[in-house]
Amino acid sequence: MLLPTYFRQPPNIGGISCPAPLCCTISRFVRFEEVDPLNIAWHGHYASYFEEARVAFGKAYGLAYLDLYAAGIVAPIKQIHIDYKHPLHFDEECRITASLFWSDAARLNFEYEITNKTSIITTRGYTVQLFLSLTGDLYLAKPDYYEEFCKKWENGSFIGELREWER
Amino acid sequence: MLLPTYFRQPPNIGGISCPAPLCCTISRFVRFEEVDPLNIAWHGHYASYFEEARVAFGKAYGLAYLDLYAAGIVAPIKQIHIDYKHPLHFDEECRITASLFWSDAARLNFEYEITNKTSIITTRGYTVQLFLSLTGDLYLAKPDYYEEFCKKWENGSFIGELREWER
Amino acid sequence: MLLPTYFRQPPNIGGISCPAPLCCTISRFVRFEEVDPLNIAWHGHYASYFEEARVAFGKAYGLAYLDLYAAGIVAPIKQIHIDYKHPLHFDEECRITASLFWSDAARLNFEYEITNKTSIITTRGYTVQLFLSLTGDLYLAKPDYYEEFCKKWENGSFIGELREWER
Amino acid sequence: MLLPTYFRQPPNIGGISCPAPLCCTISRFVRFEEVDPLNIAWHGHYASYFEEARVAFGKAYGLAYLDLYAAGIVAPIKQIHIDYKHPLHFDEECRITASLFWSDAARLNFEYEITNKTSIITTRGYTVQLFLSLTGDLYLAKPDYYEEFCKKWENGSFIGELREWER
Repeated sequence: MLLPTYFRQPPNIGGISCPAPLCCTISRFVRFEEVDPLNIAWHGHYASYFEEARVAFGKAYGLAYLDLYAAGIVAPIKQIHIDYKHPLHFDEECRITASLFWSDAARLNFEYEITNKTSIITTRGYTVQLFLSLTGDLYLAKPDYYEEFCKKWENGSFIGELREWER
Repeated sequence: MLLPTYFRQPPNIGGISCPAPLCCTISRFVRFEEVDPLNIAWHGHYASYFEEARVAFGKAYGLAYLDLYAAGIVAPIKQIHIDYKHPLHFDEECRITASLFWSDAARLNFEYEITNKTSIITTRGYTVQLFLSLTGDLYLAKPDYYEEFCKKWENGSFIGELREWER
Repeated sequence: MLLPTYFRQPPNIGGISCPAPLCCTISRFVRFEEVDPLNIAWHGHYASYFEEARVAFGKAYGLAYLDLYAAGIVAPIKQIHIDYKHPLHFDEECRITASLFWSDAARLNFEYEITNKTSIITTRGYTVQLFLSLTGDLYLAKPDYYEEFCKKWENGSFIGELREWER
Repeated sequence: MLLPTYFRQPPNIGGISCPAPLCCTISRFVRFEEVDPLNIAWHGHYASYFEEARVAFGKAYGLAYLDLYAAGIVAPIKQIHIDYKHPLHFDEECRITASLFWSDAARLNFEYEITNKTSIITTRGYTVQLFLSLTGDLYLAKPDYYEEFCKKWENGSFIGELREWER
């Protein structure tokens, strides 16, 4: 099972551990416009790399921006963190994995991992998102739509999708 | 009087010419992230350079996005054209002038000129904007808010601002 | 045969017309970060859309930036023009075709066409690129590498690739 | 004295504390293109906000990219972290402060603070940069150019500049 790099998982209680993370992987090429004068992808573009994987995750699992919006929720980014280990170069293909780790709190904890063609991990990071109503009020507990999602997650309903999206 | 490079001005009728263009000039530094591997500002960023001058114009003359929006109008870009004469480099300061040229039609015709520190024109271009209602309907004639604006323009009400903003 | 929207083709001489354009089509999704407060893709991002198709074209036909660079050539954008017909929305899939039209001059004349899922043309445009040496000197005639390319183009060598890339 | 939010400062030894941080503040307006469909500045653009302040810092204190480059050094971003407390809106003016905190190691530790017009802190964050030679070798100790800089910092040579730049 994929272990978190940044987030702590809730402790096992009575031998029951929290659900395994859900993952989605995409591939992307580094664009000319994303490369800086040092001939590497400019560090600021990685927020876009992470987001592309997170958006694909949302579409795969039913947590897309439009799904949330239809349920009266927006989930703005509260925190981002990126560790740059190796640079990416022009036209280099990379794979970006977004993994949602379980939290008992009303938040989305994603970790990210970017690998290059030789399967070296070039970048790691995470984001934290909170839930707001469309009028801007903070959800202190998980909103209903996400609570439903979490129940399916606990019941193992996403195991098939997981396999399909991790190809 | 500033002559248009791209737009034709309506002909003089009975010796009466259309109002002179309104201008606004800003300055901006080329950012690291905007520079490509050829060590010049990436050509795609110039739409942002033009927009920064156009936004400043809108604030100077009362044609800001929020002014239009409050009047029930949006003015999306219908056409853009850019001629790159000389490159801009990292941290180079440039001056960007947006000039609104008169049109009898329901559109905003802006021309742009970018000069570098040695006053060489590095870039020219233009944009055309149409007027839509907030529900997406095209205005075939100038919307009231812009018609008012044009009357002030014809009456020479902006001459003071013009001077102030061209400094 | 695909006819140019913007560029004039050289006249038939003795019944011999210039080679048909070479085309390459990619697909792309509109990203969250590319969408502006009007809920449409911001007009300035289309330079990136065009470039993505042009880069794919370069890789398909042997005119990639790195191919040119290895031959001692860079080909900066001299002119861009974009006509926006219909907006693109968040997460909308679009197809972008870059078509290189023949020119007897030392320049690359690309036209672009973007279509949405319902095959409506949302956007058209073109770019003009000149050839420079790595030290910044303008090529007045086609550089050798591109002259070779043009000979293959005239001989019909790309017809197979064309078919493959237009799928 | 400005205390760090994220970085630990070296302990006082024999009652001698490390030099106070060096600061530089700029102001910037949120651009139309930077605003997302939620009508707030898209979170990924803050790397640019931080960089603009860091670049201004470099020019103010003699640590500009080009200064470093001339000394045979590049200083890529190794880590970035951003905490979003309040959103920024279209055309909102904000002030961005970059503060360099002392480190005994061969790295640049910057903290950032963004405030809006009402002086509320909207955003905090930090970056860590390492030093590489132009051929990509990591500096394990401070390179000479930066060692010189640090001596001036310890000697209080920047106190005048500090005052000038914090206005």
